[in-house]
Amino acid sequence: MRVEVLAVGTELLLGQIANTNGAWLGEQLALVGVDSHFQQVVGDNQGRIVLALRTALARGDGVVVTGGLGPTHDDITREAIAEVMGAELRFDPEVWARIEAIFAARGRALPESNRRQAMVPEGARVIEQRLGTAPGLICPVGLKVVYALPGVPYELQEMFERAVVPDLRERLAAEGFHGVIRSRVLRTWGISESALAERVAPRIEALDAAGNPTIAFQASGIEGIKVRVTAKAASDAEALALLDQEEAALRDLLGDAVFGLDGCTMEQAVAEELGRRGLCLGLAESVTGGLVASRLVAVPGASQWFRGSLVTYATETKVRLLGVPPGPVVSAEAAEAMAVGARRALGADVGLALTGVAGPEGAEDQPPGTVFVGLALPDGQTSATRLRLPGDRDRVRQLSVISALDYLRRRLRQDRVGSSA
Amino acid sequence: MRVEVLAVGTELLLGQIANTNGAWLGEQLALVGVDSHFQQVVGDNQGRIVLALRTALARGDGVVVTGGLGPTHDDITREAIAEVMGAELRFDPEVWARIEAIFAARGRALPESNRRQAMVPEGARVIEQRLGTAPGLICPVGLKVVYALPGVPYELQEMFERAVVPDLRERLAAEGFHGVIRSRVLRTWGISESALAERVAPRIEALDAAGNPTIAFQASGIEGIKVRVTAKAASDAEALALLDQEEAALRDLLGDAVFGLDGCTMEQAVAEELGRRGLCLGLAESVTGGLVASRLVAVPGASQWFRGSLVTYATETKVRLLGVPPGPVVSAEAAEAMAVGARRALGADVGLALTGVAGPEGAEDQPPGTVFVGLALPDGQTSATRLRLPGDRDRVRQLSVISALDYLRRRLRQDRVGSSA
Repeated sequence: MRVEVLAVGTELLLGQIANTNGAWLGEQLALVGVDSHFQQVVGDNQGRIVLALRTALARGDGVVVTGGLGPTHDDITREAIAEVMGAELRFDPEVWARIEAIFAARGRALPESNRRQAMVPEGARVIEQRLGTAPGLICPVGLKVVYALPGVPYELQEMFERAVVPDLRERLAAEGFHGVIRSRVLRTWGISESALAERVAPRIEALDAAGNPTIAFQASGIEGIKVRVTAKAASDAEALALLDQEEAALRDLLGDAVFGLDGCTMEQAVAEELGRRGLCLGLAESVTGGLVASRLVAVPGASQWFRGSLVTYATETKVRLLGVPPGPVVSAEAAEAMAVGARRALGADVGLALTGVAGPEGAEDQPPGTVFVGLALPDGQTSATRLRLPGDRDRVRQLSVISALDYLRRRLRQDRVGSSA
Repeated sequence: MRVEVLAVGTELLLGQIANTNGAWLGEQLALVGVDSHFQQVVGDNQGRIVLALRTALARGDGVVVTGGLGPTHDDITREAIAEVMGAELRFDPEVWARIEAIFAARGRALPESNRRQAMVPEGARVIEQRLGTAPGLICPVGLKVVYALPGVPYELQEMFERAVVPDLRERLAAEGFHGVIRSRVLRTWGISESALAERVAPRIEALDAAGNPTIAFQASGIEGIKVRVTAKAASDAEALALLDQEEAALRDLLGDAVFGLDGCTMEQAVAEELGRRGLCLGLAESVTGGLVASRLVAVPGASQWFRGSLVTYATETKVRLLGVPPGPVVSAEAAEAMAVGARRALGADVGLALTGVAGPEGAEDQPPGTVFVGLALPDGQTSATRLRLPGDRDRVRQLSVISALDYLRRRLRQDRVGSSA
């Protein structure tokens, strides 16, 4: 089965936003087992959307079209699909009722123009809107199909997983495809792509003959490098067994560089290490200005193990709130003092602190990119490490966050902190 | 003149990398004054690249194709273009000499496979390679044209500017086009797309007859909605005059909903309001866990007006560090007390505080998405506002940040705080 992706939006053609939906959908289609040979982008013009849809349907069995489902006059994906189907648009009272409910819940007046979003091509199936006001559509065109999804990434992703994947699986099963493709990602941090490739080389050589599973690397910027294992098999159980076996072999080669699997983030890895030991954390942040805290509270249940953060951007507040002694504040001593101060002020078991120079200028004779991470442990032990980070202000800050969290994670694992408590 | 963009690479279809070249080229083509109605992505398959090129040439006057010019066996863009031109590939000794020189300069052995990169379709013009080993190509197809550029972004950008832009300008001049195109973005927040459309309707109607400048809306997720004005004119000065005039008319209709222009962020708008009044800010954050602070410190020079943030995630720390009285902490009273506490503890002129429920569960009988923003001003005045925000945990948090910053911005403007100080 061949399915293309068509992204609608003049802002995509003009390069005002990047087509991230195209990349996400391409990845998901491959994981479902659907071939996708072409993608297209087209502007908000009905004739051209129709042409792009017809081109895609001529080359394949289906299209996922994203965008152009909003309430304004240039949102015309609905009209274009109806034209390709040779169908009329009709007003759907159920869709309208849900739009009304969404506006009522937000206490906002409902503009008349939103009625456009309740127009559905005759013969199309509605994918109920749950996160935004635009419903999705499953539109048969003969034996082929057009899936219409909103352009807002999180709305699109939720609808794709809830409604499009099951529909694609049914169509694949009708074609006699019952195999499964499963993949698993080992998340690594603190190791370069070439070093990773060297360590993993024995596994890649061993697998090349069989060709299943396969191993691929994927750089993810500051979030480290992903090692993706992909297995094809007749059943879920068989595929998972292949993945389990390969994961174990890779973990042997990579050790502590692996911080989690699949969607696991560094903050979740830290949360797990803290939770396992029954410890709670307090932060003091200078150079990162609250970024570490904001990543930690993104973990559901963070209140169980996270006390808070003292973002002491001004030097005076470092002294007043954290008891940092006079002297340079971009130093290992200040980082340790901040960690101790955070632990005490926030009533935490573990204190973690960051102080440094994001740039563009240096400070206290330290070049931009110099960051000190301080740690205070429950037994009173303190330590600090110095980082030299590349890049501009934002990159230094982002790298500081993940470096500090990885430092905490590795120290907790090494020291078996709290394991006897 | 209409020119499409075609990106070649199976890794783009599989979503392993995002098609950033497409976005960049789309923006550049628009700035040159070329219409671009479609973009395509295709994998490393000769038949499909040929089909995509023919589709693009049938719809327009030219194509910029990127990628597939490397030395390996799956780099087949050259072969596909030769097929579309009906031409043979011939070995170009000059191109080869430059590849040899590049390898020699890096002290590397030159693999035989690189000879592929010196193959040029008969009748094509070579764009000399300066940063990488792949040359670009300008390939006439009748009166139409295919530009082939490497997929490496910085190589592509250098060649596009050096060789493709001049060629496009020549073709445009032959069509009688000599003008410039300029655009300006008004950044808005706190107004829905449909309400915005209603308010701006008089300008859109007035302009529709002339068709210049044009106005377009662009939702930017939590960052609000952009109103983009685009003007064509004979000179830069004329284009800027049109933009100035339209900006003034739109500001009259939109008032305080406009927080800045072009790349201006909400935190920069806040920084400007604070800076203009000589005020410094201190934060207390609960639900946003440091996110507000992290956005503020991203503004260069933040230490001039930003003192820090007390991220009091645990209730106990709200009491201890901020002096919040006993009682519900998801309340207007707690938000105001937090703002007062932040102002005092951090020695700031203005205190801003956020407390709320990000979800997924509610708390203190408040549903998820309930957030209170508290404000304490230099004259001792305090105020608070309640937000009801949609979406999941992350979205509630992101919306809280920008809502709170916008609340602060508007209050500073309304109250003319500090203007008499």
